[in-house]
Amino acid sequence: MNYEDTICAIATPAGMGGIAVARVSGPHTVDIVARRWQGKPLDTMPSHTAHLGRITDSQGHLLDQVVLTLYRGPHSFTGEDVIEIACHGSTWIQQQLLATLIDAGCRLATGGEFTRRAVMSGQMDLSQAEAVADVIAAQSQASARLALNQMRGGLSSELAALRERLLHFVALMELELDFSEEDVEFADRSQVTALASEIEQKISRLAHSFDAGNAIKGGVPVAIVGQTNAGKSTLLNALLHDDRALVSDIHGTTRDVIEDTITMGGTLFRLIDTAGIRHSDDVIEAMGIERSFSKLDAARLVLWVIDGTTALDQVQAFGQQIIPHCHDKHLIAVVNKTDLADVRPIVAALPQLMPDDAHIVAISAHTEADVQRLQQVIVEAALPQVDDDTVIITNARHYQALTRAGEAIRRTLDGLRDGLPGDLVSQDIRECLHHLGTITGQITTDEVLGQIFAHFCVGK
Amino acid sequence: MNYEDTICAIATPAGMGGIAVARVSGPHTVDIVARRWQGKPLDTMPSHTAHLGRITDSQGHLLDQVVLTLYRGPHSFTGEDVIEIACHGSTWIQQQLLATLIDAGCRLATGGEFTRRAVMSGQMDLSQAEAVADVIAAQSQASARLALNQMRGGLSSELAALRERLLHFVALMELELDFSEEDVEFADRSQVTALASEIEQKISRLAHSFDAGNAIKGGVPVAIVGQTNAGKSTLLNALLHDDRALVSDIHGTTRDVIEDTITMGGTLFRLIDTAGIRHSDDVIEAMGIERSFSKLDAARLVLWVIDGTTALDQVQAFGQQIIPHCHDKHLIAVVNKTDLADVRPIVAALPQLMPDDAHIVAISAHTEADVQRLQQVIVEAALPQVDDDTVIITNARHYQALTRAGEAIRRTLDGLRDGLPGDLVSQDIRECLHHLGTITGQITTDEVLGQIFAHFCVGK
Repeated sequence: MNYEDTICAIATPAGMGGIAVARVSGPHTVDIVARRWQGKPLDTMPSHTAHLGRITDSQGHLLDQVVLTLYRGPHSFTGEDVIEIACHGSTWIQQQLLATLIDAGCRLATGGEFTRRAVMSGQMDLSQAEAVADVIAAQSQASARLALNQMRGGLSSELAALRERLLHFVALMELELDFSEEDVEFADRSQVTALASEIEQKISRLAHSFDAGNAIKGGVPVAIVGQTNAGKSTLLNALLHDDRALVSDIHGTTRDVIEDTITMGGTLFRLIDTAGIRHSDDVIEAMGIERSFSKLDAARLVLWVIDGTTALDQVQAFGQQIIPHCHDKHLIAVVNKTDLADVRPIVAALPQLMPDDAHIVAISAHTEADVQRLQQVIVEAALPQVDDDTVIITNARHYQALTRAGEAIRRTLDGLRDGLPGDLVSQDIRECLHHLGTITGQITTDEVLGQIFAHFCVGK
Repeated sequence: MNYEDTICAIATPAGMGGIAVARVSGPHTVDIVARRWQGKPLDTMPSHTAHLGRITDSQGHLLDQVVLTLYRGPHSFTGEDVIEIACHGSTWIQQQLLATLIDAGCRLATGGEFTRRAVMSGQMDLSQAEAVADVIAAQSQASARLALNQMRGGLSSELAALRERLLHFVALMELELDFSEEDVEFADRSQVTALASEIEQKISRLAHSFDAGNAIKGGVPVAIVGQTNAGKSTLLNALLHDDRALVSDIHGTTRDVIEDTITMGGTLFRLIDTAGIRHSDDVIEAMGIERSFSKLDAARLVLWVIDGTTALDQVQAFGQQIIPHCHDKHLIAVVNKTDLADVRPIVAALPQLMPDDAHIVAISAHTEADVQRLQQVIVEAALPQVDDDTVIITNARHYQALTRAGEAIRRTLDGLRDGLPGDLVSQDIRECLHHLGTITGQITTDEVLGQIFAHFCVGK
């Protein structure tokens, strides 16, 4: 698929800076830019080289001194001829640079149009293109790594392998239709069943990974609970200690974000407001607490902060209130104030109260003793192992497609078990293939494409 | 002068975008980046070439897929080895990219440090470096062009020529001191006087250009005056017509800016609030008007909007009030509402009221007839001719230095006229040379350098 027009946009963040980069892509990239370029001739310029020169306005007046880099298609981001122009980062110059390029024959790119062209020219598939947006929006090491893996084709190759093997069998089954009077079976039903069952498991695993992937992308939800004065705020400050400066260095983060999320070990954690539980001193007042506990539902991880100087029976009473609400969550009991009391009796008593997979860490939030160890426990407890090759679903569209593909493959398995005729079974397989295909973009409507790229920034 | 450490910073505007660019400069650029780079080997990579590859964190985990461009010194912005890394424009990735570069041995650059290194390595002089900041801050074609001209060395070469000729004579005069008993004159006094007088004129011209340059940089101040209902708002909207959309396309401009400034013909105009004059219907009430007129003082240009449907004597009465306040300004009488009335009697009567260099333009703000011609008149009236080679001072530091150099050269002329001894005259010439040298940076203290570069953004 070839586009006839040549597009341009500022690819760098909006605003004023040292430099800004305009990107031009399309069949007429070289011709159009040449009309505004004073420097080494573009037609003989080797691909992937950078050159100092000048860009002029339509009257030939100097607009800016720039560095121009040429990427000849297909060895470029979009697969087309691409020129990137690094100008001075004045907002006025950025605007004028676009204006002179448009005047010379470019069209202003729509959101995500460069990436869309990369998809259309086969440089990447749709799930990789979506990952580009995720990489740009990444807020932690874990989410960046997942998105990068998807961008590099992790999900694509996993799905391509499934689709290819399914296609082989469905073709055989559809061939049977041509010989329907002869009642032959080209596709060995036991082999089809084995494959469908294997694929059902893989799809389930991918769909199931969405929970973890979504948590990584949006931040792992964490609830900090405990009685008043247990040291929750001090602990929060100690946890934020290393990272607050780091976070405030990020351009564009707001104070709200700093207060509500925290990055530990490269993973984003999202703190859940459990004010009702935090401020309830009176453990007898169970009804009030019960209502607050409903807020715990969204948490994947619960930090139960215990004042190590309080009496054991108080700890046990509070624990009996909260632990029943944590059965599907990672529970970490944080016994605080090791600088003020011998907390060993409490630590020793806790295992009887808590589930087997819960953790117990004794710390002093005040002196920050063992806070780092607590961070490690939190990070390890909260997350599945994510290495550079883990394929985890982070995209709701993909999750929906996988869910539907899973339903279709389960119907396939039912049909095979019940001995349904090949044409009915192959319909279910086709449906499964269809849903898998929408993820990578082999099967996609313009409407879906429009929705996906509408979320992209212009210039990408 | 060589720096021993290698610096890094994000050079593109702060925030999230399609891509962002990190810049690394210093003697260890290649070694440091190589520790985090997976791709074509850097040591054999030709200068000015771009390569797709990967940047890792300190543990060797993939951080991002990037495009790396290498510029080997001295053929780079700073004169040192420079590497630019274009990463995905996630704020998190930008921050991590800096973190991994710092971990590998870089230091975070201070504001303007790249440009400061360019000055120190002789890639540009100080006035050119200051122009880089002006280019980035440029808000109009005229200011961008002035800054670009200064960046390309317009002011530098003009000053260098003056300094060189003065140095020749002062050296001769100082040689006379070695032969003071013999009462010789190596430097012909009439030649020195001719040169000093020529230089005094050039310095005066440059210093005088500061008014125009400052107006171009900050916006030409324009007052729109006229009786109520003369059509001032409609005119303003008509003038903004083409440019409002353009302005709102500029990232980072606020609504306030849109309402208070307007770009016409590539020049920024700053509108002065003359509400007192605008709303005064009653021309007899001279005292009140008088007070408002003081606001006119800051204007370089006055647009007197006249309702073409009013009686001539009213126009004349109002004109007699405002015209005395416009003697040092460009006055443009805008006779409005040509769509409603025959305005020729008013147009014919105006020349008797107005100064010779004033303009008269008849328009209809409502139908926008002749508004474009008015724009041309405004742009031409407001500005000195600025072409790509005009040297105009826009910087208050340069203006101050030129003023002092001018005082010194005038003292030189006085001394020559009064026949003062050579050692006294040469002191004044030396002082003039000193002030000229501070502009280009031949003579500069660390403190001055610090002040200048403190205004730069990090990454430039």
